Amino acid sequence: MDGVKFLLDLSVLLLGAKVFGLLAKRIGVPEVVGQIVAGLVFGPALLGFIQETEFLEQMAEIGVMMIMFEAGLNTDLKEMRRTGVKAAGIALVGVIVPMIMGAAVYLLFYGIGSSDGDVILRGLFIGTIISATSVSITVAALQELGRLNDTVGTAITGAAIIDDVIGIVALTVVISMKGGNGASGIGSVLLKVVLFFVLAIGSGVVINKGMHFLDERFPHTRRIPIASLCYCFLLGYVAETYFGIADITGAYLAGVVLCNLSDRDYINEKVSISSYMVFAPLFFTGIGLKTSFSTVNARLLIFSILFTAVALAAKVIGCGGCAWLMGFKRKDALKIGIGMMSRGEVALITAQKGLAAGLLDADFFTSVILLIVISSIVTPILLKRVYQN
Amino acid sequence: MDGVKFLLDLSVLLLGAKVFGLLAKRIGVPEVVGQIVAGLVFGPALLGFIQETEFLEQMAEIGVMMIMFEAGLNTDLKEMRRTGVKAAGIALVGVIVPMIMGAAVYLLFYGIGSSDGDVILRGLFIGTIISATSVSITVAALQELGRLNDTVGTAITGAAIIDDVIGIVALTVVISMKGGNGASGIGSVLLKVVLFFVLAIGSGVVINKGMHFLDERFPHTRRIPIASLCYCFLLGYVAETYFGIADITGAYLAGVVLCNLSDRDYINEKVSISSYMVFAPLFFTGIGLKTSFSTVNARLLIFSILFTAVALAAKVIGCGGCAWLMGFKRKDALKIGIGMMSRGEVALITAQKGLAAGLLDADFFTSVILLIVISSIVTPILLKRVYQN
Repeated sequence: MDGVKFLLDLSVLLLGAKVFGLLAKRIGVPEVVGQIVAGLVFGPALLGFIQETEFLEQMAEIGVMMIMFEAGLNTDLKEMRRTGVKAAGIALVGVIVPMIMGAAVYLLFYGIGSSDGDVILRGLFIGTIISATSVSITVAALQELGRLNDTVGTAITGAAIIDDVIGIVALTVVISMKGGNGASGIGSVLLKVVLFFVLAIGSGVVINKGMHFLDERFPHTRRIPIASLCYCFLLGYVAETYFGIADITGAYLAGVVLCNLSDRDYINEKVSISSYMVFAPLFFTGIGLKTSFSTVNARLLIFSILFTAVALAAKVIGCGGCAWLMGFKRKDALKIGIGMMSRGEVALITAQKGLAAGLLDADFFTSVILLIVISSIVTPILLKRVYQN
Repeated sequence: MDGVKFLLDLSVLLLGAKVFGLLAKRIGVPEVVGQIVAGLVFGPALLGFIQETEFLEQMAEIGVMMIMFEAGLNTDLKEMRRTGVKAAGIALVGVIVPMIMGAAVYLLFYGIGSSDGDVILRGLFIGTIISATSVSITVAALQELGRLNDTVGTAITGAAIIDDVIGIVALTVVISMKGGNGASGIGSVLLKVVLFFVLAIGSGVVINKGMHFLDERFPHTRRIPIASLCYCFLLGYVAETYFGIADITGAYLAGVVLCNLSDRDYINEKVSISSYMVFAPLFFTGIGLKTSFSTVNARLLIFSILFTAVALAAKVIGCGGCAWLMGFKRKDALKIGIGMMSRGEVALITAQKGLAAGLLDADFFTSVILLIVISSIVTPILLKRVYQN
């Protein structure tokens, strides 16, 4: 053991998250916003008291997986079937609109007079970055509001999951346009996506049967939630490692697989306590910890602000507009559009891949992080407001 | 994020720990033994499927701190006051006897005909290694038996905590005998120990008052267990970083400080669920993961077996004998002796310090790990047996 600094990190972040979360609630803002602010305050952005470590990142990852697993676990299957097609439509339009708007703002800013032949591709890549919703923040906010499982909540969660898959395809398309080996790359990604869902559904049927059996024989025993959580971790691992699909998508699907167990609430309780005692606050503070304001120049700052505004507006226009066209009430469509605004680690991962492919300058990381932090703070606040009016 | 291999590790270890734990229970052996065996099976000792990582070590550390925090939280203060003096006596004799017996077995094995002038000191150091009880395994086993808080359980926990402090002093004495700057080193260690307890008790009074206030105003809210857990992590961090006292001692004391809160059971429930869902199994499997049988030769193996046998016997003789002399019934004295047998990470840390001071060969690490694994498996089994007869 090198040292026990991580114990200090844990106690500061967990206590800080709780205190700032309670303060946020006091002023009528969702608790998760306070937790993100706690990360900003103790992290490099402000006090510099705590640096992000691999340990904290891994704890945060467990936290977001638990949040998504719980969301899956609380799925109302009937509601999901009812909203499934609409969710797919919302997801698709919610990817296309941000791609176009992102590319447009990039070209407006860096494209005019550029001699770079790849400039349109670079623009499309910027669009791809902002096309992937990270729904975990929205899920947590909806949970706080008690509105995760109604029609709107289910549509948002469903659309965000599908949007993740479409985003992966879009990413591959753009990168293969740069690389040249287009068709085969896209084909293999599509194949992987299909294979993953076949595997997830196939194994899901077996796991569901097995867990039903276990649950009937040993109801309310520790083995039930422990086995469930292990399944969540495993499916997340398999999704990310072998199929290039985000681990949180695997975690969510694991929850859906188990959502009709009779001990569902028992599992949910145990996972939820582990989550709010340690892991989930580390996910939210982790968003704040990632932020620092060191490498910002004026032009980049202006671009970042515009980029963030466009990224947020694009989801409201794309997802909200599509939902409205598909028959949702205007107010519900607005809720969906706002719920899909939040971005997270998927945007960062996409940006990293763009860097590796030579489609993105490292400077733009600042813009992406700014987008993540601002959308993570703004989404729950706006969401609470539209639900309360 | 480098990868999500840690998710695979988690799911294998948590599921493995549960399955092996249940199998152990089936054959009448405490569940924690099964969990250790799961670590042996999946770790380098057998299948080699999972390697220890820094992440797993840190998770395990949180696990053992939660176990000790719970033990402190469940302290019966009256019982503790009643058994305090006896516990101190048991601890003292329980350090002296293993030191002498450990030195004797080393001298018998490596001392005869040795030209090494330090040989007696080296022997004493081997004795020091086996002088420190790691009570976490015993605490978990007593918890499983529902006997943590009676007179015997309190005596064991109390003695193990005091024994940790005496062990630190002994370690410093032996190392300073080698180094030369004897008196000042010992003086500063004693000062640190005193200062730590002054600080722990002083801050404990304030924290206790503050938490009572919080508890009365906001009973049964999440902030109570979260703040408590943060205090546990913080005191553990301070103990280890600034005072050279094991973090688990700090965690235990944090529990004692909070043991008379009216929400004590509420705190205990939340921490206990977080502990058994994720952290505690990683501590127990971690013991198994540390083991591999690569660098063993015949002489070392024989020494290791003898060393382990002596280490176990020395605690039964020292602690059990002392308890008996102090008026415990013969059977209770045996329980205490057996309960103090278990060794853990403190022995490893001591061994590491000896390596740095040139008082120990790296080969002996194998002996120390063997002692830890065997004592961790044997102690709960014997404990269950003496409690059931």
